[in-house]
This record gives sequence, structure tokens and C-alpha cells, in this order.
Amino acid sequence: MHFMKCEIISVGTELLLGQIANTNSKFISEMLTTLGIDVYFQTNVGDNKSRLLECLKIASERSDLIILTGGLGPTIDDLTKETVAEFFSLKLIEDIDTKLKIQSYFKRSKRNLTQNNYKQALFPEGAKILPNDNGTAPGFIIEKNNKVVVVLPGPPAELIPMFKNHVYSYLKPLSDEIIVSKVIKMFGISESQVDEMVNNLLVSQNPTVAPLVGNGFVTLRITAKSDDPLKAKNMIDEYEKNIRGLLSEYIFGVDDDTLESVVLNLLKTKNLTLSTAESCTGGLLSEKITSIPGASEVFKFGAITYSNESKQEILGVSKNIIEKYGAVSEETAREMAVNVKDIAKTDYGLSITGIAGPSGGTPTKPVGLVYIGLAYKDTVYIKKIISNGNRDKIRLNSAMNALDMLRRHLSGLKIDY
Amino acid sequence: MHFMKCEIISVGTELLLGQIANTNSKFISEMLTTLGIDVYFQTNVGDNKSRLLECLKIASERSDLIILTGGLGPTIDDLTKETVAEFFSLKLIEDIDTKLKIQSYFKRSKRNLTQNNYKQALFPEGAKILPNDNGTAPGFIIEKNNKVVVVLPGPPAELIPMFKNHVYSYLKPLSDEIIVSKVIKMFGISESQVDEMVNNLLVSQNPTVAPLVGNGFVTLRITAKSDDPLKAKNMIDEYEKNIRGLLSEYIFGVDDDTLESVVLNLLKTKNLTLSTAESCTGGLLSEKITSIPGASEVFKFGAITYSNESKQEILGVSKNIIEKYGAVSEETAREMAVNVKDIAKTDYGLSITGIAGPSGGTPTKPVGLVYIGLAYKDTVYIKKIISNGNRDKIRLNSAMNALDMLRRHLSGLKIDY
Repeated sequence: MHFMKCEIISVGTELLLGQIANTNSKFISEMLTTLGIDVYFQTNVGDNKSRLLECLKIASERSDLIILTGGLGPTIDDLTKETVAEFFSLKLIEDIDTKLKIQSYFKRSKRNLTQNNYKQALFPEGAKILPNDNGTAPGFIIEKNNKVVVVLPGPPAELIPMFKNHVYSYLKPLSDEIIVSKVIKMFGISESQVDEMVNNLLVSQNPTVAPLVGNGFVTLRITAKSDDPLKAKNMIDEYEKNIRGLLSEYIFGVDDDTLESVVLNLLKTKNLTLSTAESCTGGLLSEKITSIPGASEVFKFGAITYSNESKQEILGVSKNIIEKYGAVSEETAREMAVNVKDIAKTDYGLSITGIAGPSGGTPTKPVGLVYIGLAYKDTVYIKKIISNGNRDKIRLNSAMNALDMLRRHLSGLKIDY
Repeated sequence: MHFMKCEIISVGTELLLGQIANTNSKFISEMLTTLGIDVYFQTNVGDNKSRLLECLKIASERSDLIILTGGLGPTIDDLTKETVAEFFSLKLIEDIDTKLKIQSYFKRSKRNLTQNNYKQALFPEGAKILPNDNGTAPGFIIEKNNKVVVVLPGPPAELIPMFKNHVYSYLKPLSDEIIVSKVIKMFGISESQVDEMVNNLLVSQNPTVAPLVGNGFVTLRITAKSDDPLKAKNMIDEYEKNIRGLLSEYIFGVDDDTLESVVLNLLKTKNLTLSTAESCTGGLLSEKITSIPGASEVFKFGAITYSNESKQEILGVSKNIIEKYGAVSEETAREMAVNVKDIAKTDYGLSITGIAGPSGGTPTKPVGLVYIGLAYKDTVYIKKIISNGNRDKIRLNSAMNALDMLRRHLSGLKIDY
């Protein structure tokens, strides 16, 4: 099938009550995009037979591929399977293997198996059953009246592996086009600046280049369509090369890279160690660094000196400095960075001091004013930033600026930009 | 109108590409639930005129209230307003106030105003305009053919305040029933334990009591329907009283409370100070505490001793202890808590040491093993936990257990549970 229109129907009253956001549709759509399958509609409907039938009627009139999620549980509310079978007038038949799996699953988890659990062993006749490695509700696929209907369990922990392991490979041959995309991640430059620098690429049709603002950083997504994976990859490589030519120093990584993961890898390869001293970020910087497995190889110590006393007595920032310039000052940031590096005996010392708000700002030192210090050998670099937004945004932007400052030093780039 | 059926249509190709999950539908549905307005369908469609017209046709046949989000921007892709006007055959008319607002907005932010920005000053004739305090795209409401149509901008930072400040009060009179709900938050007890203890309440029809597992803690949502706000409130109060009678010690707060906000308030009221010493959580505990404005009144210092050397040389944990019992041990947790309390001269010292994984586990000390120490005056309390899940889950559960241990001590509850 050259061109395939897909529609996703998510079943669950909890969605309509606003108790959860629908992350299943997002995940499935993202996967289908890479398969070159276009999703035209995503619909959320409650655990209600007549309204689900209505959705199936509409979907079967306008789409080739219908993917349903949710409502496969053992309770009386769960009616997706029964409703799909009724709509396509298919009988429900018990699958022995599934029945046995359910029995052993309950045996393992020492839970009591009730009669309604066997409901999960019933499938529409002719269905291809999709095993569930993370729960008791298998999914299934049926092909009827030129429609492909995929039915998956609601819990993401069950749906995601089922899609990756069993659905993806089934759908791949249905599209003769593949889509490859790569995300280029930048820090220290605004979206509008990026737009201006690459605007001649933004008009391209294949590959497409789309800017997106992520959590505190700017990204460009390059997406190439082709019937040949290699062709697609080459298109991406060429555009990535152009973008790097224009924005190299701001690019810290691609796809799943984060500033902290990139910085940690640089420290590991160069065999250098790090310690941190934080005031207004209160541990956010060290938390980000240590969220990466293996951080202990390079990260040794962090001091959260939240009071002036702790800055002086524990980190040894001189009383004069704090009295003369204040805790939020270039001078304090400098001593914090140097002292934590010396106390922890690390190669780098990275410090943050500032005013995260909402209160505590003054005309000369407004909320959002932050000083970052980076000490390495006998040199100390200081960066002054003023962040907008609320307390969370200011703290996040401060931590990311600190990480980027270290990334730039590790990469031999200029730091004052 | 006694009974009102609502449908939410979110417009944006980024939703269909799976680039973002639809949090707007979740937020709006949650708000409508409190108004007693039932949402029957949520549909996501791309920035495509014919398909949006199709959605409007379907929605106008089955719903009384249609809420659209997204596609109000200045670019050529943004066509929600034009499409809605066409579907209800209404002319677009320029609103002078909006035009002036847009001009001054661009003046303030020193950006260049292009002609297509004026597109955002056009509205269907007779529309009630909803001011946008956080962007240039106002929303609007039209009433046509017994339908109420609300159109809102896509960015949550613009949509949420617009809904709360302008839409909520407009919709309230459309429903003669109000729904009040309150969330009771618990820690240190499993969802199934809660289910068992309150199962006689779970069958109640009005108010309803629904369990939900949040980020690491268990919640019960009490929801009461009534035509009289006071009656609803009394129903909630009575059920909350019953629940507190059964689960009191596990209940740390309600609605927007978090463990960290509750702990900080307790410390403030009792005028007590806190310092922390973290290993495997790497600053997550202090980051949570300092995320609350005003934390500096009670939180003084945090040490992230990620290496054995920093535990010994900076925090003064004795070499023998670490060599004899290991860095992940009751004894190390005890010294970390006591020493950080003494060094920082605070009333409390709270410590965490453990194995967050994925590597580093042994048969005797598996991944997920964490010791928490709480030092107060001459007493030290130790809690040993074994968490399931990945690195993030283990770190989060450790930080929350530490906060709950402190909450229990501040509340005069037993700590070893």
C-alpha cells in the first residue's frame, strides 16, 4: 500500500475526565512518522460502547489503518475488544496459549485468578495475537474490509514494548516509504537567531528542517523521506553538515543527548574531575549531573551553600567579600568555584549564585540575576546572566548555562558569548 | 442548560507527528469536570482546513459545547479562526483594541511587527474576545445555532491563564450543577493497602472516592456533585474525616501540597533548621527542598558526598566505618546525618546513601538498597529501604522517603513503619 491514512482511537474515561494526558497517541504517532504512515486524526473516547461504535464508524470511513488503545482489562468497563468484534461482526474465540499464560502469570505473582480474567483470553476470529510481556492483556491485529485494525492495551509500560516488538515490524511493509529524522540540539542562542541563520534551509521540502524550543534549549529537526534508507541518511548528513557549518559552537548534541550527558562524556574522555558549589539552584546542577549513570567516575562533591554562614564557614568564602560585594556577586561566585575545586581536589570547580525569586530582588540586583563561576587550574571564568520567568525557569536556565560553560571549556570554545 | 455535552478539538500537526502530547485537552477536561460539564470526545487534527471542517461538522452534530485549541498564530499555517468563521458562515472583522495591544506588545519586546501579525486582530462577527495576557493571540467565544464555540491559543502558558481568568466564569452558568473535588495525598502505604482500608467508601456514588497513584505517592480524590456548593463541601468534609480516621498518619497533605512544601512549613512553624548529606540522590533531596520559595529560612546547607574521599575528608565520616561497613550502610548514613548537622549547625541533619544503579549492585547490597539517616539533637533514626524500578525511580523514592521521615518526626509520628 503506497499511501496509508491512519487514525488513533484511545479508549478511557480517565482521559475525558482529564486525570491523565494521552501519551500513547504521541508515542504511536512518533513511531508511525518514522514509518512514513500519516496520522490524520487522534480521538479520545470514554469506556462507552455506543460512542466507541460511533468512532469506529467514522474512522472506518476515512482511514486505512485504525489503532485502538485501552479498554482491554478484565473488568466490566473494559469493552474495546467486544466492541471492535461487534463492529466488524467477528465472533470472540478463546485462545488456549493465552489462557495458560494468564494462569501462570497469576501463579507467579501469587494473586487470585478470578473468572473475568479469562475474558482476556478471548479474541476476534482470525486475529493475530500480540503477546503482552508486561501484563495480562494481549493486543491483537485484524484485517477486515481493506482495513487494518490494531488493538493495544492502555498502560504505556505494556503498550510501548508491544508496539516496538510486535506492531512496528508488522506495519513496516505496509508503507514503501521510510522517514528518518535527526534532532540537532543547541544552547546559548535564541530560536529567532537560529531561524535567521538557517532560514534558507527552513523552506526545503525534503528533507524538512523544523525549529523547536525544548526545555531551555533550541532544536532543529531534520526529517528526510525516501524509499531508500541510505538515501534518507545521506540527505540528513548533508543538512546536518550545513547546519553545523553555521551554528557549530552552539550545537551540544543530537537526538537523546543532554547538556549533562555531553559534559560527562567529555570529562570522562579527558579524564578530568568535577565538583560544584550551588546557592540559588540548591542542588539542581549536581542532580542533573548525577542523573547520568556512571557520574561517580568524574563527579566527586557538591556543596549547596544556601546560607551566608555555610558559604563562609564550610566553603571558606571570605566574610569581607560577602559583606563588600554580597552573596550574589562575581567575587562570591569566583571564591565558591575556586574553593570547592580545592576542597574536593578536582580539576574543575563550577559555582552558581543568584536570585531565583520570587522575592529577594533589588533594583541593582533583580530577580533572575545569576553569576556562574568556572575554576580550572589557576584560571577562573565568570559569566553573568539575567534569566526571565519564574523560580523554576531561572534555576533551570542557571544550571544549563553552568553546564554549557563547562562544555565550552572542555571543547576549547570561547566562554564569554 | 441542565445537561451539556462537550467536545474538545485540538489543532496542530505537531500533535499528529507525535512531537508533543496534548496536555491542553487534559487541563480543559479537568476544569470542565469541576463544572459538571461532560466531555465525550477529544479530537486532535492537523493544521488542515478540510479535515478541520470535517471535525467541526461531526462535533456540531453530537455536542453542545465545542472547545478548539491551537492554530491562532500569525503564520499561514494557522487557520483555526478562519475555518471556524467559514463553518458558521461568519465574517471576520478587525478589533481595534486588539490591534493596538499587538502593536504595543511588539514595541515592548522590541520585535519587528510584520503585516501578518495583524491577522490576529481579526475575529468572527459577534465574537466575545478573550484577552491574552501572555501572548499576541487572543481567544474568542461565539454562540451560533444553539452551540457554544470557544477558541483558545495552543501554547499552554497562554491557554491555561486564559481559561482560568476568562472562560471558566463564562461556562459556569451554563451548568446548574457544580462538582467539587479534593485530593488527599498519602505516602508510605501502597495503593492496594489504601483500597482495602477504604473499600466501603469506593462504592459510594456521590461523593465518589477514586484512588490514583501519583509521582511516588498515593492519592484519593473525593468528588461531590450538587446544585449547592455548601452541600458539596459538606459531603467532601465528611468523607475526608472518614479517610483521615482510617489513614491519618500516612496523609501528608491535600490538593497542591507536596512532601517538600509540607516539611518546609512544619520546619518554619517550629522554627527549626535543616541540612542534608546526599550520596546516591546527588542533590535531588536539596533540589526539592529549595524549589519552594522561602526555603532559605530553614534550609542552610547540603553536602553531596559522591565519592568516599569527600565523605571522609569533607563530611568527616570515619575511614574505618566506610572500610568496615561500606559507603552504603546504616553506619555511614548515621555519620553523614550527624556530621552534616554539626558542620552546618542545624537542628536536623538528613542523609541518604544507597545504590541507584543500573550497575554497582551485589547479592548482599542490590541496586535499590538505600539507607536514610535523620539526626536530631542526640538521636539518630535510620531507615533502610529497597526500591524497585530504574535509576530515576530509585532516586525519587529515596528522596521522598527521606522527606517523609522528617515529616513524621516533625509531626510526632513513629518513624519505623
